[in-house]
Amino acid sequence: MSVLVVGSVALDSVETPFGKADNVLGGSGTFFSASASHLAPVQLVGIVGNDYPIESLKKAFSERQIDLGGLEQADGPSFRWRGRYRHDLNSAETLETHLGVFSNFRPKIPEQFRRAPYVFLGNIDPRLQLEVLEQVERPKLVACDTMNFWIESRRPDLMKLLEHVDLITLNDGEARQLTEEFNLVKAARWIMAKGPKLVVIKKGEHGAFMFNGTSIFFAPAYPLESVFDPTGAGDSFAGGFMGYLARTGDLSEASLRRAVVYGSAMGSFAVEKFSVDRLLEIGPGDLSRRVGEFHRLVNFEQELDS
Amino acid sequence: MSVLVVGSVALDSVETPFGKADNVLGGSGTFFSASASHLAPVQLVGIVGNDYPIESLKKAFSERQIDLGGLEQADGPSFRWRGRYRHDLNSAETLETHLGVFSNFRPKIPEQFRRAPYVFLGNIDPRLQLEVLEQVERPKLVACDTMNFWIESRRPDLMKLLEHVDLITLNDGEARQLTEEFNLVKAARWIMAKGPKLVVIKKGEHGAFMFNGTSIFFAPAYPLESVFDPTGAGDSFAGGFMGYLARTGDLSEASLRRAVVYGSAMGSFAVEKFSVDRLLEIGPGDLSRRVGEFHRLVNFEQELDS
Repeated sequence: MSVLVVGSVALDSVETPFGKADNVLGGSGTFFSASASHLAPVQLVGIVGNDYPIESLKKAFSERQIDLGGLEQADGPSFRWRGRYRHDLNSAETLETHLGVFSNFRPKIPEQFRRAPYVFLGNIDPRLQLEVLEQVERPKLVACDTMNFWIESRRPDLMKLLEHVDLITLNDGEARQLTEEFNLVKAARWIMAKGPKLVVIKKGEHGAFMFNGTSIFFAPAYPLESVFDPTGAGDSFAGGFMGYLARTGDLSEASLRRAVVYGSAMGSFAVEKFSVDRLLEIGPGDLSRRVGEFHRLVNFEQELDS
Repeated sequence: MSVLVVGSVALDSVETPFGKADNVLGGSGTFFSASASHLAPVQLVGIVGNDYPIESLKKAFSERQIDLGGLEQADGPSFRWRGRYRHDLNSAETLETHLGVFSNFRPKIPEQFRRAPYVFLGNIDPRLQLEVLEQVERPKLVACDTMNFWIESRRPDLMKLLEHVDLITLNDGEARQLTEEFNLVKAARWIMAKGPKLVVIKKGEHGAFMFNGTSIFFAPAYPLESVFDPTGAGDSFAGGFMGYLARTGDLSEASLRRAVVYGSAMGSFAVEKFSVDRLLEIGPGDLSRRVGEFHRLVNFEQELDS
């Protein structure tokens, strides 16, 4: 089954303690697609300017099941982001953001994408996320992402959106900001009371929680010896998560737990190189090996006597 | 089998967003003992002043297998610590520290404690930790803790100590400070090259890693809805860890992994109330239930086809 993603398609310039990359493929839609397409066909909806190296994107995605039929090209500059990570790699320092044509983006879902059973609303204005939902036909699962900027500036729209999504992914800081609850268990419960049946709280290098109202699942981030560039880890996580569900069509708790692990595995690959480079390189063997490594990382046997 | 612990026995005054406690039982030796004694007999070596409410300690520990035969009472004031936690509960702000008789502590291991098969050197001067090792007879496992103060002021002694311990527990900040490696996988490898076969890096609310040179194990902190007072969580972790090993006498990797989970479970109980109150309250049923909850928290089945 296919996954529809609506998100940014950008050009990133990134500096880390290990190197520098200029105007490379970036954006939430791009990372999500590169990740999810390992597991299921992806339909990408986004916008780029007329300066976008669209042939590079097509070439990068040429061997992947990613339909670019919803990628609009408009007059004007593309979304560009420039950022820097210090030695702790924990948080990006944004040096420049130019929204370009992205600032007037109004997602139009092509006819052939409207029945996608899995829908991921990347981190864009909640009003646009709601517009996307008006254009799709009864998906099996709708998930959304958001960020501090929308929580602050579009709270009423975001609250309305929450009534219409099955799952939200957000990071710990955003969960605290949205709910005004410091404790993440309480924050998740607050969010579930507003609509979503599932809440995924990402803690970056500290892993991710999934809450479903009756149980909590936790997956650590994979302890890599070299994290090269953290950009896109969260969107790659979402891609692995949604891609896994779309591949299996299984929304049982066991499947959702594995989806979190597939997401974590994809996040761990994304940070090994700049841009989507590592995500495009890996094959199914790499992915299942890393999932196995996650299992060994956390697995313990309970005693027979306890 | 029994566990010998050498550590501080103090009086803590703590303020958290949820309440205040004055002159309550505290110190690394106290938390370790309250925790480990759920699983194995404990022999405590420490020092208190003549102002110490020794009867309260005896009463608190009366139903537990804790031998206080190594607790020296000296002329002078007891070790007192006063601290405060803000709403994020992540790091204590120390308001006052009075070492009192602890500043002249020279651990004397009673004859009947010298053959303890499991030895935990709580966070004291590495010179004293080395003196303890000179007094014990071939333990099966020696573990030590340390802190930023000793890493800074007693590095040569600490490096010598590392040659003589099987395991070190320290937090992520301390591991980075000791090794000058930001990456924890690299930091653990650096430490193992200096002696310890096992390294446990604690990340507080973000869980704990155990490294053994060939594999990595991770256990999250239990996602409690109410963390009341984080004081003593690390020492309670160490107590659960060492207590489990002493109970089973099994140093296989499977057992060490379970020990980390028992440690994490004990840490999660410790923070539910002030001082050792919650650790003294719980029974074996509570402990095995929480270990089961840890299992459900991280457990996922790998797919058959991957």
